[in-house]
Amino acid sequence: MSRPFAARLGANENIFGPSPKAIAAMEQAASDIWMYADPESHELRTALADFHGVTPQNIVVGEGIDGLLGYLVRLLIEQGDTVVTSDGAYPTFNYHVAGFGGVLHKVPYRDDAEDLPALLAKAAEVDAKLVYFANPDNPMGSWFTGEDIVAHLDMIPEGCVLLLDEAYIELAPEGAAAPVDINDPRVIRMRTFSKGYGMAGARIGYALGETGFIRAFEKIRNHFGLNRAAQAGALAALQDAGWLASTQANVAEARDTITGIAEKHGLKALPSATNFVAIDCGRDGAFAKAVLDGLVARGVFVRMPFVAPQNRCIRLSCGPADALALFDAALKDVLAELG
Amino acid sequence: MSRPFAARLGANENIFGPSPKAIAAMEQAASDIWMYADPESHELRTALADFHGVTPQNIVVGEGIDGLLGYLVRLLIEQGDTVVTSDGAYPTFNYHVAGFGGVLHKVPYRDDAEDLPALLAKAAEVDAKLVYFANPDNPMGSWFTGEDIVAHLDMIPEGCVLLLDEAYIELAPEGAAAPVDINDPRVIRMRTFSKGYGMAGARIGYALGETGFIRAFEKIRNHFGLNRAAQAGALAALQDAGWLASTQANVAEARDTITGIAEKHGLKALPSATNFVAIDCGRDGAFAKAVLDGLVARGVFVRMPFVAPQNRCIRLSCGPADALALFDAALKDVLAELG
Repeated sequence: MSRPFAARLGANENIFGPSPKAIAAMEQAASDIWMYADPESHELRTALADFHGVTPQNIVVGEGIDGLLGYLVRLLIEQGDTVVTSDGAYPTFNYHVAGFGGVLHKVPYRDDAEDLPALLAKAAEVDAKLVYFANPDNPMGSWFTGEDIVAHLDMIPEGCVLLLDEAYIELAPEGAAAPVDINDPRVIRMRTFSKGYGMAGARIGYALGETGFIRAFEKIRNHFGLNRAAQAGALAALQDAGWLASTQANVAEARDTITGIAEKHGLKALPSATNFVAIDCGRDGAFAKAVLDGLVARGVFVRMPFVAPQNRCIRLSCGPADALALFDAALKDVLAELG
Repeated sequence: MSRPFAARLGANENIFGPSPKAIAAMEQAASDIWMYADPESHELRTALADFHGVTPQNIVVGEGIDGLLGYLVRLLIEQGDTVVTSDGAYPTFNYHVAGFGGVLHKVPYRDDAEDLPALLAKAAEVDAKLVYFANPDNPMGSWFTGEDIVAHLDMIPEGCVLLLDEAYIELAPEGAAAPVDINDPRVIRMRTFSKGYGMAGARIGYALGETGFIRAFEKIRNHFGLNRAAQAGALAALQDAGWLASTQANVAEARDTITGIAEKHGLKALPSATNFVAIDCGRDGAFAKAVLDGLVARGVFVRMPFVAPQNRCIRLSCGPADALALFDAALKDVLAELG
């Protein structure tokens, strides 16, 4: 971004930021940057394994979920292989599928949520090698319970893998994380320090899966792709459960504030299990785009879904009260102008 | 590495470390880590373009040279395509070639140096799509003048690309950098902040090439692979020419010290254009390995080339006087023990 915004609420970041202990760890690591990081991320993987009750061999750490998505698609998809996702879901997944020559089939959202049974039915229909499903969803913020997801796993067709993107899971209600059997090779889960832990600029994501599946990443990944200070920061962030709890509280409060602002101006905020909220602007995509443009012109950076009918919404990140007050004032202006 | 060493001289790092300005920039960026980095690395690419007298469109920044090697091989090599490198040169290049199904042909070193004419002749013979050539070389530290390299470019066969890995170029004598025409699509050069700039743990490398060639990376790379603080640190490092000059002086002095230590113990240090020195232990690979094991047992971490006859050497990084004194004492012990 070349232009600074008064309120940066569109880049899908966690404005409440990382644990001060993570910041301290990264500051301290700065003067050690002459050393390579541990290519096996041993300390971080061990801590993550403890956290999840699995073994370090069930975990691969990568350059954000984006990096891991690239590796996963490379592992599973050859030229012409079919892949299934939702129409309007995470575009970087689609980018990697296209990059490796996969053929993408898109399933519509249902009630502003990714439709897991329809995704898996489509996978069976087109003989897909890979299905993308995010819980919670981006850009709508919708979610399912983990039990509900697990109840659908037997719909995964033979030879197909379900990628469960849990980037926002730390910000979702209790029970949203799917209790997938770590030894089930049909499912791979991805998580990140970018969202709940507030470290988007660090580029640390990880995948959880069956050991043989995880081992396959070792033959293709960039073993020296991770920043040394970022690894130290992620470890410190993971160990500061108190900060994560305060972020969860801050995000919940901001979601309520955003919902209140939307209602005040006659719009409707959708329920969200993430650190952003989709606001239904009540008309079509062109109107939502006009609202978005008006906000951006007033220094409030937000984004919007890009597929109808979800593009009747704008999406903004949770943030502190002052940033949301700027949004409130700008939204009032914009709606008055648009009439 | 799980065990701490008294002298860490084997990991091919620059122990003199980065510019204090780079450390300060990374420390300062730590609290901004909640924001994504610029996926286009606009500021850094612009500064690099000025530095090299090219345009930002001639530069792609990646997760170290390792990351860029992966992208390059992916761009150029399909299953069964042939690739040429030197037997004993950078193994991570070979890893990526194998990962994308390329068939590697290896050319022996000549006089402990990579043999550019032989590499290009082999490329013509096997119809190679890609040739790897490092100047200066790792692990031997040997080098050619840039003019000499450019004089060989017309030997590049039709349809083949020469990858010129200049990871250590900032530590090489004046004139070693090849004055390649930036618009020549037959050559791509790679550089890094890991060596001369002392930021191995940051993971910032870049490639220099013709704009169309560089643009191809945009369709496959992880656009959010780079750490935000690392980008800020690299920019600050690039702008601190004084620190680089002091590193060059420190490295030159350490090379002389290492050469003196080797001579004192009846061994021969090879001339080096890098921040490491290969020491010829005077016998075969088994003897060099015994020397290496003895050093490691005494807390001095060094490595060695893995192909004969270069494996008659051990390789150690330049470092401050106290680390080299530990090496001196340990080497004396080891040689006395081995007899």
